[in-house]
Amino acid sequence: MPELQRISTVVAMQAQSETWRREGLCIGLVPTMGFLHEGHLSLVDYSLAHSDRTVVSIFVNPLQFGPREDLAIYPRDMERDLDLLNQRGVDAVFHPETVEFYPPNFSTFVEVQELTAGLCGVFRPGHFRGVTTVVAKLFAAVRPHLAVFGQKDYQQSAIIRQLVRDLNLDLSVEVAPTIRETDGLAMSSRNINLSDDERRRAPALYRALVMGKERIEEGRRDATAIIADMRATIERDLTTDIDYISIVDPDTLAEVAEITGPVVIALAVRLAKVRLIDNIAASPPQR
Amino acid sequence: MPELQRISTVVAMQAQSETWRREGLCIGLVPTMGFLHEGHLSLVDYSLAHSDRTVVSIFVNPLQFGPREDLAIYPRDMERDLDLLNQRGVDAVFHPETVEFYPPNFSTFVEVQELTAGLCGVFRPGHFRGVTTVVAKLFAAVRPHLAVFGQKDYQQSAIIRQLVRDLNLDLSVEVAPTIRETDGLAMSSRNINLSDDERRRAPALYRALVMGKERIEEGRRDATAIIADMRATIERDLTTDIDYISIVDPDTLAEVAEITGPVVIALAVRLAKVRLIDNIAASPPQR
Repeated sequence: MPELQRISTVVAMQAQSETWRREGLCIGLVPTMGFLHEGHLSLVDYSLAHSDRTVVSIFVNPLQFGPREDLAIYPRDMERDLDLLNQRGVDAVFHPETVEFYPPNFSTFVEVQELTAGLCGVFRPGHFRGVTTVVAKLFAAVRPHLAVFGQKDYQQSAIIRQLVRDLNLDLSVEVAPTIRETDGLAMSSRNINLSDDERRRAPALYRALVMGKERIEEGRRDATAIIADMRATIERDLTTDIDYISIVDPDTLAEVAEITGPVVIALAVRLAKVRLIDNIAASPPQR
Repeated sequence: MPELQRISTVVAMQAQSETWRREGLCIGLVPTMGFLHEGHLSLVDYSLAHSDRTVVSIFVNPLQFGPREDLAIYPRDMERDLDLLNQRGVDAVFHPETVEFYPPNFSTFVEVQELTAGLCGVFRPGHFRGVTTVVAKLFAAVRPHLAVFGQKDYQQSAIIRQLVRDLNLDLSVEVAPTIRETDGLAMSSRNINLSDDERRRAPALYRALVMGKERIEEGRRDATAIIADMRATIERDLTTDIDYISIVDPDTLAEVAEITGPVVIALAVRLAKVRLIDNIAASPPQR
């Protein structure tokens, strides 16, 4: 197995990508902020299975963190990440320096206006603009044929699909399923910043999602009532601020009042040091 | 000489570009809104001289026109444009449909925050966002190695350089000199919408620029005084609203009060149906 390449400049990344492209090789990209877990690695496996060369980017993007968010305590462990990716058979890690990605006079932003207003967009102003800007930069640096994102960040993946369509980027956006701990908690690099007590109670989020999904599959249509039951489930177990629990159209992300077709149930909560998000797809019974 | 290719879809354009790239050919792009004149053709010649394949895009971009601007009367003549480009030896014309470039749910915008606030940005809110968005789309569709813009749109070319740097686009932005009519008027597709009287008087703009340049080359440093003289020159000949006459730093586009190094003198005026812009570089005498 060839050694994992470490690439830290845009120019070197573009040169490697161009070489692979001239050889007719298909390039997969998995954009991450590092501190990798099995969720990331499932995206890596997807890319390895669907491309000839897989690049994993590791970049904790300051632009997508708000001023009172957890940039400073976002966990990092580059050596462990490199080991994991090397074992997996990844071809290259792209880890640009912040100062190269955002030099002092940096001033160009990519913004998707639809899809970003609701859900996390309400509670994290500027977050998705930070995401779409860095993803546009990563796409231009790596020039992948496909890019793999996680279902856990459902709104993000919808926004990136729109970005790719609107800017004519010739790559395919793939979304791979959420990977969960055995107790149901969605894997996230941020879980390490949960207290022991919070970690024990956090699976209430997934239980609430599953309950909501079951209600919908039983034929209940009133989104407000389902959300109220989910809220009660979460508040029974967790002392938390619930940013939102929403039932939305899978494509437009618009809130659905009466459930008559496929939806996504999405939620976000804030614990002491960590904000967690999760979601699940649900469909009413066939008539 | 091979026939000029006409390409109207993004997918076909990307396929042609990818084929050329795999052959190791260098692709030049000249983005235009059509109704070509010698100014455009000088950009085309630059691209022909510096690349293996030249693509000229023709797209009247609605996104860069304000609600009270001249989108409806912007001149168009595709057959004449195609003839001119074919004679010149251009390889392909890319002319996307508006509905493909901006489908009903289009919602992604590329915005450069620095450089866009002054000069034309004051008088055409949203204009540069329209320009940077369409240029990002054209770059993604054509994937050129170099792109050629005109010096006449000085602020635009500075903004596009910044866009390319900030988004890591691996292409070179080239700026070619303004081409003028024999009486000094900068060539522009819009000149055809001048009345006969306006057309006769319009060279006052260039005369004012040359006068400002001469003042600076003589060692005059007070921007306000030079601008006042230029304004008098223009108002003597033309009945016009002057949007601005500005002396700015060539890189930051910040207004310069005391001229101690290279500057650009830029202006914009509004006539009955047409807004005209022009600019000239100037440097104080060496010490």
